[in-house]
Amino acid sequence: MATALKRDSAGLVAAIIQQFDTNEVLMLGWMDDEALHRTLTTGRVTFFSRSRQEYWRKGDTSGHVQYVKSVALDCDGDALLVRVDQVGAACHTGTRTCFDGRSLAAVTGERD
Amino acid sequence: MATALKRDSAGLVAAIIQQFDTNEVLMLGWMDDEALHRTLTTGRVTFFSRSRQEYWRKGDTSGHVQYVKSVALDCDGDALLVRVDQVGAACHTGTRTCFDGRSLAAVTGERD
Repeated sequence: MATALKRDSAGLVAAIIQQFDTNEVLMLGWMDDEALHRTLTTGRVTFFSRSRQEYWRKGDTSGHVQYVKSVALDCDGDALLVRVDQVGAACHTGTRTCFDGRSLAAVTGERD
Repeated sequence: MATALKRDSAGLVAAIIQQFDTNEVLMLGWMDDEALHRTLTTGRVTFFSRSRQEYWRKGDTSGHVQYVKSVALDCDGDALLVRVDQVGAACHTGTRTCFDGRSLAAVTGERD
């Protein structure tokens, strides 16, 4: 499976974290091979921090644990979709998701 | 707004694409400042291809257009959540999402 991963220049793939029952997108994190291995084998989500250059298991400090429900790799191997049961807030700022209240002004499109 | 973006070493941010009414995660693409600008101002999603090093507006070749419904930047500025109305298949392989049928074996976790 690791051979299917297409890592960036830092050896990382993007991991989209989604609440399994509501389909909310909670956050995006980064994983290297070891973080993915831990995520697949322990029932808890582990990331690799690009800023701190270290592993962190979500919830160890905050209590806001992510329990793994399923993991899928995308068609070209550079993104993961991790469906979880999120305890409490996913965002370190205290909001449920890392995108709440952070909309950008956008022109919308419509089907013809 | 561009000042809030935290780009990777290639000048890109990850863009999660989600169907606006079902909350399905469709795919993950990459945007630089110009791709984001086009996405915010035209009603159609434009990516920057890491492999081809060029812009591509989703659907121009396939017809599988993504109409923009909303765009949000995450708390630390390195990911975008773009909610769209996806025409047809999001994946170039013909599946609805780029993650369909691509699950990895994972141990699951449960709340206590």
